[in-house]
Amino acid sequence: MAALHCIVKLGGSAVTHKDCFESLNVESLQRAAGIVQTLHRQGRRCIVVHGAGSFGHFQAKEYSVSKGSMEDSIDAGHLRRGLCLTRLSVTKLNHLVTEELVKHSIPAVGISPFGAWKTAGKQVARPDVAAVHEALEAGYVPVLHGDAVLDTEQQCCILSGDTIIEILSQELSPKHVVFLTDVEGIFDQPPDNPGARLVDSIVTQLDGTSEPDVLTSALPHDITGGVKLKIQTATRIVAQSRGAVTVFICKLDSEAAVRVCTRGEIGAGQGTKVFLAASTS
Amino acid sequence: MAALHCIVKLGGSAVTHKDCFESLNVESLQRAAGIVQTLHRQGRRCIVVHGAGSFGHFQAKEYSVSKGSMEDSIDAGHLRRGLCLTRLSVTKLNHLVTEELVKHSIPAVGISPFGAWKTAGKQVARPDVAAVHEALEAGYVPVLHGDAVLDTEQQCCILSGDTIIEILSQELSPKHVVFLTDVEGIFDQPPDNPGARLVDSIVTQLDGTSEPDVLTSALPHDITGGVKLKIQTATRIVAQSRGAVTVFICKLDSEAAVRVCTRGEIGAGQGTKVFLAASTS
Repeated sequence: MAALHCIVKLGGSAVTHKDCFESLNVESLQRAAGIVQTLHRQGRRCIVVHGAGSFGHFQAKEYSVSKGSMEDSIDAGHLRRGLCLTRLSVTKLNHLVTEELVKHSIPAVGISPFGAWKTAGKQVARPDVAAVHEALEAGYVPVLHGDAVLDTEQQCCILSGDTIIEILSQELSPKHVVFLTDVEGIFDQPPDNPGARLVDSIVTQLDGTSEPDVLTSALPHDITGGVKLKIQTATRIVAQSRGAVTVFICKLDSEAAVRVCTRGEIGAGQGTKVFLAASTS
Repeated sequence: MAALHCIVKLGGSAVTHKDCFESLNVESLQRAAGIVQTLHRQGRRCIVVHGAGSFGHFQAKEYSVSKGSMEDSIDAGHLRRGLCLTRLSVTKLNHLVTEELVKHSIPAVGISPFGAWKTAGKQVARPDVAAVHEALEAGYVPVLHGDAVLDTEQQCCILSGDTIIEILSQELSPKHVVFLTDVEGIFDQPPDNPGARLVDSIVTQLDGTSEPDVLTSALPHDITGGVKLKIQTATRIVAQSRGAVTVFICKLDSEAAVRVCTRGEIGAGQGTKVFLAASTS
């Protein structure tokens, strides 16, 4: 098959209004669709994965879907209801994203992880890469999303879009992975702080460690662990591919976003590039 | 696992207004959700499969999605667009059906065939029964639907809800299968005709033939082949199970519908029962 050009992650914070229940950021989504349209017109094969943002998160939190339960007891019904409500919400967003892509003449097909993907203790025990691969082969743009799935140890859990990307990267070897977010990239302080600096490069070793290493220890401003997890995912993707895959983190609403996705190039101050350290051997 | 009690097919004509583009029959859907709610409260495991009705059919027809194409030529883009538009429409209906079931306190999860299910020359080459089985095992009510899927010989095709039911019946052995439709059952003439008679019973042999046999030859009033196909599906399900599965065809908006689903019983004049002939050996 033709090589997979890139995997584009549409951050939940970028395509939804994160603090407003089930609220789509229509302009940002249209911009994202424009980027994927450019890739498609250039004949570049790509996969879109999106987060949940204000879809799914509220329901998942209320019912502790991510935590699941080790006990197959009276709260199983409560947990199942949580999973169902979470799924209704994230699949609603998946529909809206796919619809916008199709409006932009992209042959986009929503592929929902539940059922096909399964976890054991929150680790992916069975991914469904074949379905994604076959859709790509047939000329489609698969659109996946973070989802609530069945877990063999704790009944259910949240399978994040980032985890899906990590596995798809391993199996399908894209040239690069682009995280399109609501900020320019990785910052050394909260982005709103007056002295905050964008980190242009994160250099990764084969063992997954990276420099500047402060970024992989707990970031003082990162209460949710979101930034830390994003860096860990990015460095793992780079290390596992032995440097064949480069990861970019870039603002969706920026001039740079199209060029990062189409050419895998980013200028200084436009985002964060995560790549493998030059071999010393 | 606990036995699978029944597979309920919600006919596209029953839960949508068939001639009006993407128009849900809200009252009928609520009634269907009430039936599934009763099953769930009784602890009966069930699967819901729905047709497309006025969702998907228009798009599939316009782009000849069912016919597909043997040529990987210039019309491939047109066909892909047809598949994408068809899928957007049927997944929209799947969302509405699942949402209504969840509103009725049913742990319903939409499972879309595209990707997981694949055909070769319109015949199912790879079903995904595991995902359905696991969801059932975990206490959920899987909600599947007729979908546009990839076909290894003709690029794409329509995988009907009836075909999905046939395969799920073979693999998961429900006690019975109930087709809930917009008419009382199978008629010997168009149901609107003054002399039309409801056929109470269709007796099937192990070889799949059935009596009254006029029903399996071309029905004069069945222009689309829909009724004939329905009978063929029903008799195949009965024959393949060697009589373990009974099939009912019954009107969704009827008193009989709940009892058929919960007890597998139907009175005279309330619908059509398809079952295996008593063995003569």
